[in-house]
Amino acid sequence: MTSRPDGRADDELREVCFTRGWLEQAEGSVLVEFGRTRVLVAASVTEGVPRWRKGSGLGWVTSEYAMLPRATDTRSDRESIKGRVGGRTHEISRLIGRSLRAIIDTAALGENTVVIDCDVLQADGGTRTASITGAYVALCDAVGWLRDRNLLAGEPLRDSVAAISVGVVNGRPVLDLPYSEDSVAEVDMNVVVSGSGKFIEIQGTAEQEPFDRATLDRLLDLAAGGCARLTELQRAALGA
Amino acid sequence: MTSRPDGRADDELREVCFTRGWLEQAEGSVLVEFGRTRVLVAASVTEGVPRWRKGSGLGWVTSEYAMLPRATDTRSDRESIKGRVGGRTHEISRLIGRSLRAIIDTAALGENTVVIDCDVLQADGGTRTASITGAYVALCDAVGWLRDRNLLAGEPLRDSVAAISVGVVNGRPVLDLPYSEDSVAEVDMNVVVSGSGKFIEIQGTAEQEPFDRATLDRLLDLAAGGCARLTELQRAALGA
Amino acid sequence: MTSRPDGRADDELREVCFTRGWLEQAEGSVLVEFGRTRVLVAASVTEGVPRWRKGSGLGWVTSEYAMLPRATDTRSDRESIKGRVGGRTHEISRLIGRSLRAIIDTAALGENTVVIDCDVLQADGGTRTASITGAYVALCDAVGWLRDRNLLAGEPLRDSVAAISVGVVNGRPVLDLPYSEDSVAEVDMNVVVSGSGKFIEIQGTAEQEPFDRATLDRLLDLAAGGCARLTELQRAALGA
Amino acid sequence: MTSRPDGRADDELREVCFTRGWLEQAEGSVLVEFGRTRVLVAASVTEGVPRWRKGSGLGWVTSEYAMLPRATDTRSDRESIKGRVGGRTHEISRLIGRSLRAIIDTAALGENTVVIDCDVLQADGGTRTASITGAYVALCDAVGWLRDRNLLAGEPLRDSVAAISVGVVNGRPVLDLPYSEDSVAEVDMNVVVSGSGKFIEIQGTAEQEPFDRATLDRLLDLAAGGCARLTELQRAALGA
Amino acid sequence: MTSRPDGRADDELREVCFTRGWLEQAEGSVLVEFGRTRVLVAASVTEGVPRWRKGSGLGWVTSEYAMLPRATDTRSDRESIKGRVGGRTHEISRLIGRSLRAIIDTAALGENTVVIDCDVLQADGGTRTASITGAYVALCDAVGWLRDRNLLAGEPLRDSVAAISVGVVNGRPVLDLPYSEDSVAEVDMNVVVSGSGKFIEIQGTAEQEPFDRATLDRLLDLAAGGCARLTELQRAALGA
Amino acid sequence: MTSRPDGRADDELREVCFTRGWLEQAEGSVLVEFGRTRVLVAASVTEGVPRWRKGSGLGWVTSEYAMLPRATDTRSDRESIKGRVGGRTHEISRLIGRSLRAIIDTAALGENTVVIDCDVLQADGGTRTASITGAYVALCDAVGWLRDRNLLAGEPLRDSVAAISVGVVNGRPVLDLPYSEDSVAEVDMNVVVSGSGKFIEIQGTAEQEPFDRATLDRLLDLAAGGCARLTELQRAALGA
Repeated sequence: MTSRPDGRADDELREVCFTRGWLEQAEGSVLVEFGRTRVLVAASVTEGVPRWRKGSGLGWVTSEYAMLPRATDTRSDRESIKGRVGGRTHEISRLIGRSLRAIIDTAALGENTVVIDCDVLQADGGTRTASITGAYVALCDAVGWLRDRNLLAGEPLRDSVAAISVGVVNGRPVLDLPYSEDSVAEVDMNVVVSGSGKFIEIQGTAEQEPFDRATLDRLLDLAAGGCARLTELQRAALGA
Repeated sequence: MTSRPDGRADDELREVCFTRGWLEQAEGSVLVEFGRTRVLVAASVTEGVPRWRKGSGLGWVTSEYAMLPRATDTRSDRESIKGRVGGRTHEISRLIGRSLRAIIDTAALGENTVVIDCDVLQADGGTRTASITGAYVALCDAVGWLRDRNLLAGEPLRDSVAAISVGVVNGRPVLDLPYSEDSVAEVDMNVVVSGSGKFIEIQGTAEQEPFDRATLDRLLDLAAGGCARLTELQRAALGA
Repeated sequence: MTSRPDGRADDELREVCFTRGWLEQAEGSVLVEFGRTRVLVAASVTEGVPRWRKGSGLGWVTSEYAMLPRATDTRSDRESIKGRVGGRTHEISRLIGRSLRAIIDTAALGENTVVIDCDVLQADGGTRTASITGAYVALCDAVGWLRDRNLLAGEPLRDSVAAISVGVVNGRPVLDLPYSEDSVAEVDMNVVVSGSGKFIEIQGTAEQEPFDRATLDRLLDLAAGGCARLTELQRAALGA
Repeated sequence: MTSRPDGRADDELREVCFTRGWLEQAEGSVLVEFGRTRVLVAASVTEGVPRWRKGSGLGWVTSEYAMLPRATDTRSDRESIKGRVGGRTHEISRLIGRSLRAIIDTAALGENTVVIDCDVLQADGGTRTASITGAYVALCDAVGWLRDRNLLAGEPLRDSVAAISVGVVNGRPVLDLPYSEDSVAEVDMNVVVSGSGKFIEIQGTAEQEPFDRATLDRLLDLAAGGCARLTELQRAALGA
Repeated sequence: MTSRPDGRADDELREVCFTRGWLEQAEGSVLVEFGRTRVLVAASVTEGVPRWRKGSGLGWVTSEYAMLPRATDTRSDRESIKGRVGGRTHEISRLIGRSLRAIIDTAALGENTVVIDCDVLQADGGTRTASITGAYVALCDAVGWLRDRNLLAGEPLRDSVAAISVGVVNGRPVLDLPYSEDSVAEVDMNVVVSGSGKFIEIQGTAEQEPFDRATLDRLLDLAAGGCARLTELQRAALGA
Repeated sequence: MTSRPDGRADDELREVCFTRGWLEQAEGSVLVEFGRTRVLVAASVTEGVPRWRKGSGLGWVTSEYAMLPRATDTRSDRESIKGRVGGRTHEISRLIGRSLRAIIDTAALGENTVVIDCDVLQADGGTRTASITGAYVALCDAVGWLRDRNLLAGEPLRDSVAAISVGVVNGRPVLDLPYSEDSVAEVDMNVVVSGSGKFIEIQGTAEQEPFDRATLDRLLDLAAGGCARLTELQRAALGA
């Protein structure tokens, strides 16, 4: 039996590290690392909400994801220079935003907006799942900032949220794929799970071969286990 | 027990209709209807492949999705006027392309390109799943056009592909949601399935409430059944 | 003497067909066909007018024209992907808008806006003239929709409007050119005429050879006759 | 009987002035003035043609029109800042290019490209007709530049070209409208005529009221007379 | 010792010419010439200020710089067509605006906006310095226009402003470089100086070789002398 | 006498820190810190040069600068989302590129391209000077990478380069301004100096008051001293 390139067990996460407060000016921030993948997450609070939401009494949480040009092995052109944001960037930004909104009580948030910027400084697979997992930590700090200033209408965090990638590599379902595995995976799946263990988002793609129900079940098991472990690590990082 | 707005059973498709050859100039085309949702699909063949693929001996299949401004209940601005393609449009275009490539043998296609345009003329939920399901039919006709001209290097269609939406509405898992159900669904999932019954893509989102494994299983059952029925309808439309 | 490719007389229209209500959600809509040219026209009503017109008591009618990528014999790139609307598209959109405004009493329309979308599904010459001719029909239905809701300040339709192409092909002036004639015409002219037989717009271009006054006169005669016939067909379609 | 604001007869041109060689570096250039309207025209020659025309043995003539932001009575935003070229700009650029190509023998031009830039420095009506009329003069100088260097394959100028606006103001057909007349005209028409007196382009628009055939005929007479006079002035300027 | 290409002394300006009122509709305008470099400057006054400045009691002065496509020896593409303004254009626009604001008392200007458009009609080096020097003259006329209408809250012109280029060519510091010198200069510097002889902006670049303090001092001396002479010429042009 | 907000002497740098190899995949990288200002610099090497430079035997060095949206005290919109790069970004990118090219022998570099990305993670004044100073360090590592692979045609580093800001705050010339000083400075100047003490670029702006020659001299003295100190720190970081 061949082992994984970094020697991990099939159901084992890479080393995960949260450095809270990496930015001194943001209301919440964290440098999150899943192995060599490093994402700088900043949570920015502004009073008020977008125009279409004004007067609703509800807050708003949104996210933007981007990659530095040399986050990857070879340099990519900047989307600002190209003058348009690519499909992949849009897709991940929307995913992060939806994932966070799934565990936020926007009424309790009051008419405040939190924008979560996830900028990938170094990419080695799993940038979207690291972003979501780190975004929750930064969001907690931003909510704490609002709480300290009595700007909340209640407790907006209904649950926590974490995300992990799973996939089938050489016919074997594995957890938390680095780029070397991700690029050859037959099936690639990203799963977003709440702290209470429910599914928030499932995105599975047959990169090479359609997959059957048994494989899907095994991937979901792996993901559930990985997210449970991430939930613990988030709690530890938050000192909760 | 409350019934669905259009009286269908929970596991029942809307009326599905394929009108092949709707365009007289395209190598393949179909007007596909899922109830009131109408998508005009055109498959355009060009000899040769994009530059990054030249000399590989492999063909290419890609897709673009768009909506007419008045496909929906209220008019939307054109993306051409706005000067940029929105995230949702990008996301669906990419999904359709991936779904088709999952069942295509690009070596057998030879160095030919097939571009599948899915233009939503009228939208009532399920536009992406109707697009994928119709795109397969148009792709078959385009492949037939290539076959008739001896431009293929083999048989490129390894399988068929269909897609359907499922969701949880008022706590009940249902199949093929029109807009009136989609807009209030607690969970929304799009499933792409091969003709042989394997999964090609799963995209599930908790719109309001995270969902448990049992709900997920029920939704996957519904989707598998719906796609099997669509596969039959595709075969009938293709006279196969 | 050689005949036209489709056997028509020089002053004969192609088969013209209006399918009203092709869209179920638009305030007015029509699928208009001039031979193989098919344009889907949607008239969208919104209460209120653009900012620069507010408080004037006057309504507004405007139009946008576009072509699906595979409306033509070979696929064109989408203007949304290119990120800019081409000169031809702009020009035709403006022409349609002007033509409709020439027969509308904007005071009687009240402060309402009607946007007419003309999307060419299949193109075989004469897409702009089919668009204008169909746009009038869709506009009538949109005005009817406003009338039924007592949202008008009077009767906004002062006249009807139709348009037709004429040209010189192989030295012979002919009416309503399909693409095969249009692409080789020495002179190409589009004429917009009111129901009462007056000119609203004349756009004539010497594609290959400057033309003399006698040729111009013959082309105007043909156009006047063609538009008179279109006016009858519009009336019949509207059941007027 | 009321006279025109500047005291001209109905069939009288404004003062027209051509200053050739206004730019010292362009292959052809002219500052053309129709009354207060001033357009700087530059003709730039490059050897070779656009890619789609290579190897055809044919040359290419194209044009771009633009207005300085303060050419008009109140300042307009720059199209470069807005990031997109407006419909009117596109339309006029295309008109100028077509008008010049109608009198050019592209085979005799050889595989050379002439780009004609028409930049309106001050606008007082008739900017497109002044542009076309001046463009012919600059084009002649650019052709002379090519001739001096033996870069032509023959004599590319088959004829000359001039353009003038006509319109109906207060019910009276008049020639060469300044802004004060243009802005209140019931009918507005631009006519491009060859030196030999044939029509190259006719663009007539009912700005307020559809017009009948008799009015059209009178406008065409005025335009023909005006262009004949411009042709003489062009010849004089060119010392021909 | 080799002389300069146009025979000038090292500390001598090219012929400088101001033609005030070149545009009949602008509140201030000047055609400024530094040798063959010709810039058309228009000052446009509007009552009111940008939104972010409303209610401050302060006016606003800003500038936009651009070059006609054939201002230079070979034609450049239009930035409006390219859809984006280049870095150099932005940089110079910002420089002109800053230079003018340095000598304007915005409180005395009242809540009025002056936009200064500098369009280079012909370029032969020094376009940004000619622009600044001409912009001051046009600004004076625009301020006069406001004064005549009693729209000022005081005297907004605290000083005058002029600008000149200096550089090291073939090892020799020289003043006011035409293109033939500018393109081979080892050091290139633009200096903006107030009428009272103080520095407003210094931008010096080692194009080929880093330069020492002594060279810098000599360049600053040259620039100070040149600007003093320009200040006199501005006064003369303004009849002050 | 009032002291500076952080207690530094007028001619004292903030704490400067270089962390080389911050990115594991780039050919050169450094996290450079000037006090709270943190810039991640990545040097990316590609074989070959841009098309316009091919066959010249010369290499190319260029740079792009950008700021993360929450680098600053309040969040800014992303330039990728706005679809255009702002003037300030362009200006600084060009400045960094020029500064590096001033000390590079492009012939010795061979036909290789080095792109230097400077992404500001946290901004507290001096981001452009920190970028240039760090860029030199990353460039050295990239050159080392090329040297190790025998891809150089000689020794491309002719000198080193560093940059610092100086300014007049409360009438007093000071070195290395943090945001709190920069935002109130009367004069703001950025100076780029070679390791051998010569000037590469000087950009000085009177933000509030034009300044005299004596002030300029004092600022240049401060900048020269600061850059000499940065040169020592660069050497230490490079272990040279």
